[in-house]
Amino acid sequence: MILINGESKEHIEISDRGFQYGDGLFETIEVRDGSAVFLKRHLERLNLGCQRLCIPYPGAELLSLEARKLCRQQDLTRAVLKIIVTRGSGGRGYRQPDVIHPTRVLSLHPYPDYPLTYQEQGIVARFCTTRLGLNTALAGIKHLNRLEQVMAISEWNDPDIQEGLMLDANGHVIEGTMTNLFYIKNNSLYTAALTQSGVAGIMRRIIMTLSADHGLSVVEHEFTQDELLSADELFVCNSIIGIWPIRQIETVHFSVGPITKNIQSWLNRFTSDDSMEAGCIG
Amino acid sequence: MILINGESKEHIEISDRGFQYGDGLFETIEVRDGSAVFLKRHLERLNLGCQRLCIPYPGAELLSLEARKLCRQQDLTRAVLKIIVTRGSGGRGYRQPDVIHPTRVLSLHPYPDYPLTYQEQGIVARFCTTRLGLNTALAGIKHLNRLEQVMAISEWNDPDIQEGLMLDANGHVIEGTMTNLFYIKNNSLYTAALTQSGVAGIMRRIIMTLSADHGLSVVEHEFTQDELLSADELFVCNSIIGIWPIRQIETVHFSVGPITKNIQSWLNRFTSDDSMEAGCIG
Repeated sequence: MILINGESKEHIEISDRGFQYGDGLFETIEVRDGSAVFLKRHLERLNLGCQRLCIPYPGAELLSLEARKLCRQQDLTRAVLKIIVTRGSGGRGYRQPDVIHPTRVLSLHPYPDYPLTYQEQGIVARFCTTRLGLNTALAGIKHLNRLEQVMAISEWNDPDIQEGLMLDANGHVIEGTMTNLFYIKNNSLYTAALTQSGVAGIMRRIIMTLSADHGLSVVEHEFTQDELLSADELFVCNSIIGIWPIRQIETVHFSVGPITKNIQSWLNRFTSDDSMEAGCIG
Repeated sequence: MILINGESKEHIEISDRGFQYGDGLFETIEVRDGSAVFLKRHLERLNLGCQRLCIPYPGAELLSLEARKLCRQQDLTRAVLKIIVTRGSGGRGYRQPDVIHPTRVLSLHPYPDYPLTYQEQGIVARFCTTRLGLNTALAGIKHLNRLEQVMAISEWNDPDIQEGLMLDANGHVIEGTMTNLFYIKNNSLYTAALTQSGVAGIMRRIIMTLSADHGLSVVEHEFTQDELLSADELFVCNSIIGIWPIRQIETVHFSVGPITKNIQSWLNRFTSDDSMEAGCIG
């Protein structure tokens, strides 16, 4: 089932600026036992993205209501909720219309059946040749212009490689094609600052907060492939997969280290708490 | 009237990757007396873009057939034909499906009623603060990830300013929000090389060829705002507007010079020839 502006539909107008120009934003949210996990945080980021693109935000109340309606349609133990907000239809060429009626699309998707070993024993990653363009105005937000990711992920088809790591135009390592990236070196946690490219993930922010709360030093900075490859531990994360340790990047091997395991357990506890809370208020 | 994969429709599936990720390409084509002007060249560029994005090209024969069908629906003296080709529906996340069934959308739009003075006496332009990201893989092609242009054109609302000029992340001047940009200095014609950003317009290529054929030196290179502002003449172009001389950029004034007028007349003659030819084979 798909809700478009609150109505059950499966099609959108050709004139929608999401289709014409990728003029919009999206969120990808885990659904667990009928509740959208970290929904409030996702909607906050969506609101921020709307502010950056000057798209009127449909409002947390309305979006939460529709999200709950969708999540309760079926007997859902686990699924993925996608929320898209676009600038709606109209406007000649790139110029937006004087009055914007944003389009909101909420859709449910099957939860991907990733093996549990990815979380426990880690994954294999590679470096992509497709680079992330630099754009401070679009950096951090989860907008609908995703050709870079589409092209990066098309670079390999080997099912033994689970994620591709992307560099920006300056050669700094930024993130995975569908994940944020962390590494641990001398008991500190490092990740890219995302000021010029990349998506500031909900899971990334939670991991940074949880780690700081547990006394880890958390550093956002620029780093190279060589710095990454000299890490003690490293992992990728997003709202659907949680944390996947990386056990191999191309020919370099890593072990699933104690700090990564700690962060995983902090995250599991924190997510359960949020799910219970969401269930109560949902 | 809109043709989606050959059928008269107005809506597209939510799952279309054009809507989900901007995973596709488009062409904007002038329609004159029922014929799509420079259609062959537009389809060649579309084919090139499909190759770059690894989207199966629907074929010039099919697209020409549908374009003619659409252009002849009404008594069209002048209109705009837009062709969109996307990677179609499907694929989990960013990864494309194993078998791609591209979506093609052909739609007709009113010809914009720009005053004739823009062509004859020139326009006023400004520099945009929104920068073009650098991406060699996407540079030159007319893909559906157009948030940079949407944001750049939203920077001003003054109807006395007709175009915004965009710089790339390195500070080089590249193009207008909806046009390519040329300048003339000491009888040579200059334009940006578009190796890292920008759209390689059909009109841009025609102007370069016509100018070279008439003995002008044509140079693609990197240039700064200062170099642009010290030009003898300058103009923007695209397939819909033809050539608009620039008579003012912010506080700097220019005259509509003899070389710009020459190029305009070469272009008018060349376009008429193509229209007649298209009319014959259409």
